[in-house]
This record gives sequence, structure tokens and C-alpha cells, in this order.
Amino acid sequence: MAAPGPVHEALAELELVDHHCHGAVTADLAPGEFASLLTEGDAWPGISPFDTPVGLAVRRHCAPVLDLPRHAPPADYLDRRRELGWREVNRRFLTAAGAEVFLVDTGYAPHPLTSPAELARSAGAAACEVVRLEQVAEAVAGQGVEPGEYAAAFRAAAEEAVRRPGVVAVKSVAAYRTGFALDPARPAEAEVTGAARHWLAGGGRLTDPVLIRHLLWTAVDLGLPLQLHTGFGDADLRLHHADPALLTDWLRLAAGTVPVLLLHCWPYHRQAAYLAAVFEQVYLDVGLALHHTGPARCRAVLEEALEITPFRKLLYSSDAYGVAEFHHLGALCFRQGLADLLQARVDADELSLPDALRIAAWTGRDNARRLYGPLVSAPARDPSGLPTRKV
Amino acid sequence: MAAPGPVHEALAELELVDHHCHGAVTADLAPGEFASLLTEGDAWPGISPFDTPVGLAVRRHCAPVLDLPRHAPPADYLDRRRELGWREVNRRFLTAAGAEVFLVDTGYAPHPLTSPAELARSAGAAACEVVRLEQVAEAVAGQGVEPGEYAAAFRAAAEEAVRRPGVVAVKSVAAYRTGFALDPARPAEAEVTGAARHWLAGGGRLTDPVLIRHLLWTAVDLGLPLQLHTGFGDADLRLHHADPALLTDWLRLAAGTVPVLLLHCWPYHRQAAYLAAVFEQVYLDVGLALHHTGPARCRAVLEEALEITPFRKLLYSSDAYGVAEFHHLGALCFRQGLADLLQARVDADELSLPDALRIAAWTGRDNARRLYGPLVSAPARDPSGLPTRKV
Amino acid sequence: MAAPGPVHEALAELELVDHHCHGAVTADLAPGEFASLLTEGDAWPGISPFDTPVGLAVRRHCAPVLDLPRHAPPADYLDRRRELGWREVNRRFLTAAGAEVFLVDTGYAPHPLTSPAELARSAGAAACEVVRLEQVAEAVAGQGVEPGEYAAAFRAAAEEAVRRPGVVAVKSVAAYRTGFALDPARPAEAEVTGAARHWLAGGGRLTDPVLIRHLLWTAVDLGLPLQLHTGFGDADLRLHHADPALLTDWLRLAAGTVPVLLLHCWPYHRQAAYLAAVFEQVYLDVGLALHHTGPARCRAVLEEALEITPFRKLLYSSDAYGVAEFHHLGALCFRQGLADLLQARVDADELSLPDALRIAAWTGRDNARRLYGPLVSAPARDPSGLPTRKV
Repeated sequence: MAAPGPVHEALAELELVDHHCHGAVTADLAPGEFASLLTEGDAWPGISPFDTPVGLAVRRHCAPVLDLPRHAPPADYLDRRRELGWREVNRRFLTAAGAEVFLVDTGYAPHPLTSPAELARSAGAAACEVVRLEQVAEAVAGQGVEPGEYAAAFRAAAEEAVRRPGVVAVKSVAAYRTGFALDPARPAEAEVTGAARHWLAGGGRLTDPVLIRHLLWTAVDLGLPLQLHTGFGDADLRLHHADPALLTDWLRLAAGTVPVLLLHCWPYHRQAAYLAAVFEQVYLDVGLALHHTGPARCRAVLEEALEITPFRKLLYSSDAYGVAEFHHLGALCFRQGLADLLQARVDADELSLPDALRIAAWTGRDNARRLYGPLVSAPARDPSGLPTRKV
Repeated sequence: MAAPGPVHEALAELELVDHHCHGAVTADLAPGEFASLLTEGDAWPGISPFDTPVGLAVRRHCAPVLDLPRHAPPADYLDRRRELGWREVNRRFLTAAGAEVFLVDTGYAPHPLTSPAELARSAGAAACEVVRLEQVAEAVAGQGVEPGEYAAAFRAAAEEAVRRPGVVAVKSVAAYRTGFALDPARPAEAEVTGAARHWLAGGGRLTDPVLIRHLLWTAVDLGLPLQLHTGFGDADLRLHHADPALLTDWLRLAAGTVPVLLLHCWPYHRQAAYLAAVFEQVYLDVGLALHHTGPARCRAVLEEALEITPFRKLLYSSDAYGVAEFHHLGALCFRQGLADLLQARVDADELSLPDALRIAAWTGRDNARRLYGPLVSAPARDPSGLPTRKV
Repeated sequence: MAAPGPVHEALAELELVDHHCHGAVTADLAPGEFASLLTEGDAWPGISPFDTPVGLAVRRHCAPVLDLPRHAPPADYLDRRRELGWREVNRRFLTAAGAEVFLVDTGYAPHPLTSPAELARSAGAAACEVVRLEQVAEAVAGQGVEPGEYAAAFRAAAEEAVRRPGVVAVKSVAAYRTGFALDPARPAEAEVTGAARHWLAGGGRLTDPVLIRHLLWTAVDLGLPLQLHTGFGDADLRLHHADPALLTDWLRLAAGTVPVLLLHCWPYHRQAAYLAAVFEQVYLDVGLALHHTGPARCRAVLEEALEITPFRKLLYSSDAYGVAEFHHLGALCFRQGLADLLQARVDADELSLPDALRIAAWTGRDNARRLYGPLVSAPARDPSGLPTRKV
């Protein structure tokens, strides 16, 4: 590892924009519940979720935040977490994350979670909202709609959702539903009606490829930055269908419209970097991979992600869900990994210190500010935690 | 590289379980024969197989075992090998491997090879057997069977094969035969009969996709751990069809049945790690890649493989075939690569020493013991070399 | 990074064969033109192409060649470049590259570029030519030909093109036109005629899959080494269709014919390495990736590319296009990355120094000499810059 230097200091002080995360659970978690939130798999008998890279990172870097020694045993960790209670635990980790704004995907909540405002209050920061479009579509279907009305109803609902105060982006989990090996063209109205008829009759999650394409093109019409899950996720995924290179034809058709933010990307972060290098509208992060690979590997993942990525194209996100440990760990891994990477290049005289500091500020904060506009670039931290533009 | 420390000492002393290997040739090899066993390619005029990463590793790490200086020239190496004779060469390398048990795939033997018992005797260790199911199926076909009887006959033959003393697992080379982009569902009886009719009429290797699916589901019924070749292999492969991510749908359907061990994996070890992180039954190793990439890169490969893999999910194998150098080199690379990786994390205080030692013992030995049961977890080293349960 | 040692000295002195590059622009470039040549993307408002890994490398390593301080600001760099004029700029960088021969792909020239002879003269080196077959085919179509005559006319034109003095290889950009997921078989005459009828009626670029297959098989008939673009390139690509593993079946059918040189390969360089390890006729380089990932990462890319690649199978290329900075940077990155890699292994006693020096000379020069024959292995540097065999 690089010896700590001025880049480390700068990144330690930089207030990050976490441009994609979820809420933290608003309840005390039983040991099994906490453990199951630690990994992207389920809880398995005989295999502790603490015996993973992320489990080690929690014991090493989160235990001290709860006043425990480094590498505290899991049982001690769980005891102390319960003892402090979820409010205090969330407060400590969200504060430790050192973010000035969190962009919160509010469309996935199998647990009771903090709202963006609650997250902001706990963190002493601001929060904005990211609207998950599949949830909007499924809500439209759930309320009952004629197949021929689906397209208009979905669009109206999405437009209404993004008018909510604090919304700065939309998101799609197309990667989970169909994968990216889709016909890239905007579907014709009749196609959408036909597909909607089938879906609305059968019910369930939105997994129809025509309707997913329609959703992506509706996102383009909304005009907000579009976040796309790519790569690493839970067992519900076909990983190879989430390779962002599969989006190439769609990105070519959608060029000149909205920014597209490729989330997570691992293990296809080099493919994502290629897309960010050749398509103006494409950006990426390596969220989720940061805390799951942990401090021992986040520099390596960032090194690969940055091999050809323009420095205005990488953003920071934690993709933390459920346990506030991850909002903290994501930030810690990003800071440490990026500082090690940049400082080593400064030390080898491959990079000047002023350039290194610019790259740190861009990727940690300014690229997100530039993309998401005033709610993110000048967030107020008023008591409600809701972002309002500074004057 | 990490300075040697207590993790290196612990791994040097740990008796490994090599959970997937083949026999060593029981004959003196002509220089060309030895050279052709060195690589996954054939022998090519004008290009010495010693001029490869694995060739360098043999000259560096195997020459001293034969009393030669480090980096001995190929000609000296071959002379000395012939001088000592195959029995002594095998004995030296198999002993040097420091394994307590070898799990031997007995289904691939284009050369005269040691049986598991002979391998065990040479190594002063124990050996178990892994039954290769394609070989069982092809033997059934070779003995003559009616298409309508094929399914039952194959199942009976497989059941008989796994009842042989010392058998602890089955293996499939579906990756070579069809690749993994298969319909994941268990085929219907009529489908199997139809496919068998076609295959039995034409003869040759089993490459029919229906019969390969049937083989994988028969493996599930056998109830033993299932080893699957994935990734790197010889020229007979379509590498991209051996990406284990292609198995996702099948793994989902087969969840809750037998453990599935993804072998080799390189260069798709991150994809394999994802599967091991989200599917309870999935395990992986980076055998074959260890000695082929050599000591200079095995740490890097292990670093990637362990980015998100739960520590109870990585196993050690050499996948050595033919030359006992590889049984030794695989073990040496695993020990050195893993020790460097873990010790560096201990030195950086990212990992406690007790945790590092647990991870070393798990991945080198205990995960295999847990999976393969008593023959592996408490092997006897009786004079026959055949494992029997300790009392 | 490895401390500089004898391998660094040897590589610094080694005159390279740059086995795949393009010409340099023969005009003074406006700032926007220079900037757009810096990246594989277009020029984007608000994002400077200097804020990329390759942009940093230019400011760090090219600025001093133009008498500027390291890390000079982009504006100073552009001023100085204009001040010196394109002839002097090209001369400085092409000389600094330290190559003895450049193999120049002459089939892509949206800008006015140096001819091979001009490039050679500027560099004080020799140059050979690589014929791009898609350009030959499109010229045949442009001149007017009957569908039934297309195959013969294309073959005759290709044969004529490769008879030009100084031609040593052919190249295909099939990766851009159809990708590699092609039927591998040589198409029948009637198929070719049918496809030609369609293409010749419609005009435009050659993108018909039958005709691309026909082009690859015509390349085989020509008997010269065949260079194939794979992996990384500009926005005109579907990256995942350029994975060289997709070529497996075609490589199997074409075994025993011409050498096939996989160019660039990143991020599929491990897949390319597999192919080079198992198919006699397959070679690879990581050109383009060297200067785009820059000195900070070229060692890492080379480490991965060399994990299993036989040392007689890796070649050096810059794939420089347009700006002579890249002819220099490619060479600099290759020398630095490979020297760091080899010297570190020598220092760890994993490799002997004589072996390291052989590998450096092979990959930087001798493998290309061996493959491309006398024009490359004994180039004359006569005043015309055209290679002639030494006596």
C-alpha cells in the first residue's frame, strides 16, 4: 500500500456525494437478520456471513465505531449493536460516512427502512431521492389499468413520481428482470399494448422484455439521469446478462439524451469503463463492490475501473442497503482505495499532486454535483433533512 | 510480496487436501512427451514448452527437488528426470506436495497413470476417487444398450461406480462437451430416449445436449458432491462456453441438492466467486491456474478469486495431470500465494492473525473435509494407500 | 514498482518492432483536433480529453520530449506542439519510440497521414505495410463488379495488394463489422455470390457476415500473417462481440495455415492468452491498451496477458494512430511495464536474469522478426525508409 500522504488527507476531509444507496433498517435486528443483510446470499447453516471479506471489514472497521476493539468477535459485535439500539448505530455509521448528500433509491424495501429525510437527519447531511421505475410500473399495474392505457398511465405515474420534491434521478433494474440482451429499439405502441395485456392478465413482477424496453425509453423521455444496475447483485440475477457491454446498441440509439449511470459493474467494470470512454452520456461507479471486496481489494477494483475511464466519468456510491455499516464502509473503502491509488502515482511522479487532488474531488463529489444539478450541488442541511437549494 | 511471517509457516506445515487431481504417468517420458505434458497446448516446432510461465516454474521450483540448481536448463532437467526414473521422480514430487489426501479423477487416462492407491503410496498419503460421469455414460453406450434403457442403465452404472470403495465425488466435463448454455431443466424420459437413440446409432463421445443435461441431473440424484470443469483447459474447449455464470439457471433449479464444486474457473473466477457468494451449494477452486500462472501470479489470481468468496467456499486443488511436478507446484503456488495474500493483510492490520490462520486451514484442508465426509476428513494411511475411516 | 535493474537497461536499449500501428497526421492540429485524437471517444463539451489516463501520460511523458516540464498544462502542451510544427513533433516522438521497424496498417486514414516510408524517415527506422482487407473489398465494390465475379475480383485485388513492396501482413476488422460470433466455415461460392449481390446493390461498408467469413478465409489463402482487431476500440464496436474466444471454432478450422495475431485484446487479454496457449498459430499483443491505460497500469495489463501466454507468443505493438505521441508512449509503456514485471521476478529469484533478457528481446522484437520474415528481421534503413533486405 502507498504510504499515507496529502491525497489521503484530502480524501479524508472530502464530503462525498453517495450517488446511489438505500435506507437503513429502522429496527433492532436479530443476529440472524443482521447476518443475512451482510451478504448478497441468504443465511446458510454452518457458514457464518462474517466469514467473508465484508464480514472481516465490518469487524475491523465498524467495530471501533461501536467502541469495540478491532477484529471484535461477531458475537460481541452483535451484542454491542443491540445494546446501542438501531437509532444510535445508524447515527454513528451514517455520520462516519462523511457524505454531504445521499441519493436514495426508495423503490426496494423488503425491510422497514429510513426514508431519505430520516437518513439525512441521522447523517447530519442531505438526501435526495432516486425513483425506481419498475416499482412505478408495478404500482400502475396493481391499481388496475387497461392494456391500451398502460403506456400513458406508466408515463404519467413516472412523471408524477419524479416531480416529488428531492427527486434527482430514476433507476432501472432491467439487469435483474430481462438482462441487457434486449432489442434496443423503442417498442411500437401496439407492441406495448400487446405485452401489457399479457402482463396485466398474469400479474407479478415486470419481466416482459417489451415492457422493460418501453421502461428504458420512458426513462429517456423523463429527462433525468438514469441509473442502471449492472454486474454484481444477489441470487436473483443472471450475472452475464448484466454485462453492461450488452447495452451498446441501446446506448448508441439513446446518445444525446440522458446521462446513463452504470452502477456496481464488477466484474464487468472494464467493460463499463470502455463504454464511459466512448459514449458521452455514460458514467460508472463500483458501488457494492467496494464494501463487499473490502479495504484489501477496493484499490485493485478501482485500479481496473480507472484504467481507461475519463476522470469526469467515475462517481462514488456505496449501494448500501439495510445496515448503516455499509454506508460507512463504502465511503471508507472508496477513500482508502482511491487515496492509495492516487498517492502511489504521485509518489512515482506519474501524476502531479494538484491533478491527484482534482481527480479525488471530481470522483468523490463534483462529478455527481455536475450531473444531478442544484439539489445535489448545493444541498441545504435544514432540520428536515430535505435538500433545498442554498441561497 | 509480503515478508514471510507466521501465515507462511502455518501454510508450510498444513497438510493439504488436493480435492481434484489426476494420476502421474507410470513410465519414463521421452523429452517430447514430457514437454507436451507441460502445457495445455500440443508440442509445436520451434517453441519450447519450457518457455512458458509453467516452464519457468518447473525450472525454478522443481529442479531443486531433483537436486539440480534453480533455473536449471531444460536439457539438464530432462536428463536428471530420466536418470532418476519415474518412480523416484513421482515419489519426490508427490511427497513434496505435502497433501494428506488426493481426490483423483480416474476418468481421463490417455497415458498409463498411477491409480489412486499407487498415487497415495508414492505420496505417503491417502487418496480417494472421483468418478467422471461422461466416462460412465460412454462405457454404458460401448457395452450396447437399447435407447429406451439408456437412462436406467446409465443411472445403475453410475450408482455402481460411486459404490466403489474410496469414491467421494462425481465429476462432469459438460463444459467441454456442450458448454453451459444449456436448457437447465431435467429432460423428460422421452427426450432422453430420443437423444440416446441418436447417440447410440452414431457412437463417439457424449456431446448431445439432452444427454448432458440428463447426466447433470443424474449427478444430482447420486447425492455426492459434483465437480464441474469450468474455465481454462485444453484446445478442445470453447472457453466462453465454460463461463460458470452460464450455469445460473441450473444452479437455481438444483438448489438444496448436492454441493457443486466449480473447478479451475480462470479467467471466470470472479463469476465463480459471485455464484459461491449467492448460492449455498456452490464452491470453487483455482486449480490448474495455480501452476500454469506460476508463483509470480498465483497470489494475484487468488486475490481476485477471494474478492467476494466466503472463506468456507474456496478449496484447494492442483488439477495436476501426468507429471507429478504439477502435484507439487500446485501445492507450492497455493501455499505461497495464499500466505502472501493473508500475511499482507495481517501486516496491514486488515485481518487478525487468528482469522488468517483459520482461513488458511479452511481453504487448504477443512472445507474439503467438511464437504467430502469421513473418507477425506479422517483418512487412514495404511500400506494400501486406500483411505479407510480412522477409529 | 520494481527498482530499476538490468532488465530496465536492456529494454531501454532494445530496438523494438512495433508490429501494428498507423501513420501520424501530416498537418498541424487545431487544439480540438488534437484532443479528439487523444481518446477513442469523440470530443465532449465540458470534459477535456486530457482528463484521462492517456491524457495524464501525455502531459507526464510527452511534454519533456517537447522541452516542457513534466505534467505541463494542456494549453502549454498544445501551444508548444503548434510552435514546433508537425514535422518536428512527429520526428521527436517517432525517434523517441526507439523502434527499428514499424508495421503500418494503411487501410484507415480519415486524416492525412504519413505513408510507411514517411513514417520510417521521420523515425530513422524502417517500415513495412499491413494491408487492411475490408478496404480492399470495399475498393473492389466501389469499382463495380458483378456479384458472381466478386470472390475472384476480391482475391485478385488482395493478391495484388500484398505483392506491393514492403507488405508483410494482412489485417481484418471483422470485430467491428460483424463481431466474431460467426459461422466458422468457409462459405460456399453460391453463398458468397448471393451475399455480394445484396451488398453491391445496397453499397456502404462491408458488414455482411457471409462476406466477412469469406474475407477471413481469403486471408488464409493469401498465406501472410493475419492481424485481427480484438477487444478495445472506438464507439463503433460492440465490445463483447470482439472477445477473441468467439473465434475458437474458426481457429480450429484454420489450424495449420497462417499465423493469427490478436491485436489489443483488452479486456479479453486472458481469453487471448488462452488461445495463444492452446493454438499453435495464435499470437497476441496488448497494443492500444498500453498507452490508454498508461504507465500506471501497463504492467498490470501485461501481468495478466502473460499469466499463461508462451513467451514466444506475445508481441509488441503501439496501435498508435494520428498523433506520434502514441508511437512513443506505447513503446515507453511496454518497456516500463515489461521491465518492472520481469525485474521484480528476477529480484524474487522466480526468474533468472538471462531468461528475463531473452523474454524481453523475444516479446519486444524477435517474435515479430520470426513471424514476419526477412523484411522485418533484417530491415535496411536506407534513405527512402523502405525496408529492403540487408546483405
